[in-house]
Amino acid sequence: MAFSPKFDADGLVACVVTDMRNGDVLMVAHMNADALAKTIETGDAWYFSRSRRKLWRKGETSGHTQRVVEMRIDCDQDAVWIKVEQTGPGACHTGRRSCFYRAVPLGRSEAVTLEFRDGEKAFEPRTVYPADD
Amino acid sequence: MAFSPKFDADGLVACVVTDMRNGDVLMVAHMNADALAKTIETGDAWYFSRSRRKLWRKGETSGHTQRVVEMRIDCDQDAVWIKVEQTGPGACHTGRRSCFYRAVPLGRSEAVTLEFRDGEKAFEPRTVYPADD
Repeated sequence: MAFSPKFDADGLVACVVTDMRNGDVLMVAHMNADALAKTIETGDAWYFSRSRRKLWRKGETSGHTQRVVEMRIDCDQDAVWIKVEQTGPGACHTGRRSCFYRAVPLGRSEAVTLEFRDGEKAFEPRTVYPADD
Repeated sequence: MAFSPKFDADGLVACVVTDMRNGDVLMVAHMNADALAKTIETGDAWYFSRSRRKLWRKGETSGHTQRVVEMRIDCDQDAVWIKVEQTGPGACHTGRRSCFYRAVPLGRSEAVTLEFRDGEKAFEPRTVYPADD
């Protein structure tokens, strides 16, 4: 079966990033063709920032790089799943290990308030992110 | 912290679905405001099909429903992660448990060929999908 990723109208595929240590979802990012090719070639996670409109290597500013141990692609080849070895304390720019540090309580129909989970800051963002990463 | 999902230009957020049994990523889908509200209220996974332009409850045709045991939202509230109890043998319309049944080998720069992983069909799609699901 040929590798034939299906990019959306913006030239992107969604990328789910999980922690090889415990399977937690660390973040959801996007890859364009260049980011996907660089990730496959180098084994380091590269993404495309939709807000900054640029290719970036995860950790290029913070040092919190991601080494890809396995890459999967889904049935219709429009989403990628990478299992990574997360270097440093965390993946999230807020200082948490995972970007998914808040839970949405179920069973409510209105006035939903988020609940913190695993929310301790693993590092102080200001000390490692002089610019965004 | 208020729940304030950031929908994209198409009114959608990405939703990562993982298997509560082993943490595997089963699928990546999309939710519009209605799908998100129905999922939160009922605890069953509802999505928005981009191809069919309609709201659907996972498993409404196949019986392979997903019971949500936890919902998380990411730092910028544009992606959701749900941990589910997958009813029936699988989540993927091809008959596999996970949509991510193929691996992309790393270290290549061209002619990438996908490798099957956990690719045994858990069920025969034609027997459970008279229509798409």
